[in-house]
Amino acid sequence: MIQWAFINDDFIADEKAVLSIRDMAIQRGYGIFDFFKVVNSLPLFLEDHLDRFFYSAKQMRLEAGKSREELQTIIIQLIQKNALPNCGIRITLTGGYSDDGYQIAKPNLIISLHLFQSPTPEQFEKGIALVSYEHQRQLPQVKTIDYLMAVWLQPYIKQQQADDVLYHQNGSITECPRCNLFIVTKDEKVITPSENVLKGITRKRILETPHFQTEERPISLQEVLEAKEVFISSTTKIILPVTAINGTFTGDGKPGLVTRKLYQSLF
Amino acid sequence: MIQWAFINDDFIADEKAVLSIRDMAIQRGYGIFDFFKVVNSLPLFLEDHLDRFFYSAKQMRLEAGKSREELQTIIIQLIQKNALPNCGIRITLTGGYSDDGYQIAKPNLIISLHLFQSPTPEQFEKGIALVSYEHQRQLPQVKTIDYLMAVWLQPYIKQQQADDVLYHQNGSITECPRCNLFIVTKDEKVITPSENVLKGITRKRILETPHFQTEERPISLQEVLEAKEVFISSTTKIILPVTAINGTFTGDGKPGLVTRKLYQSLF
Repeated sequence: MIQWAFINDDFIADEKAVLSIRDMAIQRGYGIFDFFKVVNSLPLFLEDHLDRFFYSAKQMRLEAGKSREELQTIIIQLIQKNALPNCGIRITLTGGYSDDGYQIAKPNLIISLHLFQSPTPEQFEKGIALVSYEHQRQLPQVKTIDYLMAVWLQPYIKQQQADDVLYHQNGSITECPRCNLFIVTKDEKVITPSENVLKGITRKRILETPHFQTEERPISLQEVLEAKEVFISSTTKIILPVTAINGTFTGDGKPGLVTRKLYQSLF
Repeated sequence: MIQWAFINDDFIADEKAVLSIRDMAIQRGYGIFDFFKVVNSLPLFLEDHLDRFFYSAKQMRLEAGKSREELQTIIIQLIQKNALPNCGIRITLTGGYSDDGYQIAKPNLIISLHLFQSPTPEQFEKGIALVSYEHQRQLPQVKTIDYLMAVWLQPYIKQQQADDVLYHQNGSITECPRCNLFIVTKDEKVITPSENVLKGITRKRILETPHFQTEERPISLQEVLEAKEVFISSTTKIILPVTAINGTFTGDGKPGLVTRKLYQSLF
């Protein structure tokens, strides 16, 4: 059970972890976050996630109020206090309690534990189905709390018998709301969009793989439909095969060999 | 001083009015609101604002949990308890406390008082300067809490020596983040964009004016720059002349006669 959270300068019982309704996240949807896994009480790829957290904060002109070392210490203490060896941790930074409800104030820092389920081997074998939707996230390289469109599209995704949505704009695909997308070409090159996406930490690890040639460049929706393999990557899902898009099988409708090998090398 | 707020079913001291960090507004920027003025303890155009509040809630699949009559009663009680005859009231509805931080849960309803300053006669005479920026709000007809781009653009607006930003996309202008825009043509027709904007309550009153011919249709940025008069409308500002856009005077750089007459008829 999640017992403790951290807000600004204090550890606080999770059920009492609150923000005033004057906070800019509630008033104006203004905030950023990052999310990483804790496995056997150890945070995974924490340096990368903190890099991105501070990058997002700077882009949004939010002062974290804590150094990298201070955040690391708080995170380790929070893991120890909760005694949940396997969980997710989210660091959120909001626009703070604004006098006029519009200008950025002193940000509120929240560090909280979250439970999540990793995909099962059966889910990997089944893969996921995507439906495409024309949309471009605001400030795509910043991990903002803006998931308005993603949450709003949930009934549409279900109605289309899909598991998630793939955003595209001006003829190029970008990403899913919470994961990056890769295609594998016939000559086994692993490619992901270069622009207008959030630079995922798992995405980065895949691009660094020694097993395959990788590339970042614009990808059209048509290329995705004709790719040999398609998969998504994220912190919680690592890699999941995409077996259908817009009701049409991708590849041969099963997890591909490159996808499988990448997954095994990262797990 | 603001003393009381209302959350879900209870009046609560404003400084104790909080939401759990698990709320979908903080987690995913998911929520809607409306805002109206209270003058001499009477809410202004409450029916129109409640119409739009329930419209926004429905579009975002959020159950208000209260009928129109119940909301009216709570609002009147909240005005009486606070004893602030002139203020603004905001009704906010969020995605609620979500188990997985992604699916909509039972919404949280917040009704809160806000202080604001109406423009002075001097500010009306001076008018405001706008700078244009290419952007389209998500779900523009819904009054969501998404002001990410608007808040993020504040330093840019200052740097451009402007007072606010005018969004445009695909050659057409739409709106400012918190107000609608109108142009007055040489033959004194009062025109505002028809599509991809929030339908403001003051906008509606202007379109109903008996004094001038009005029209809703697409407007290009060039048309705004060449208009005889330009002004913005909002609940708190009513009407303010726009005297410059992108560093160039609009009209003769002073409040126009049509703008002035409309302002006087609405004040």
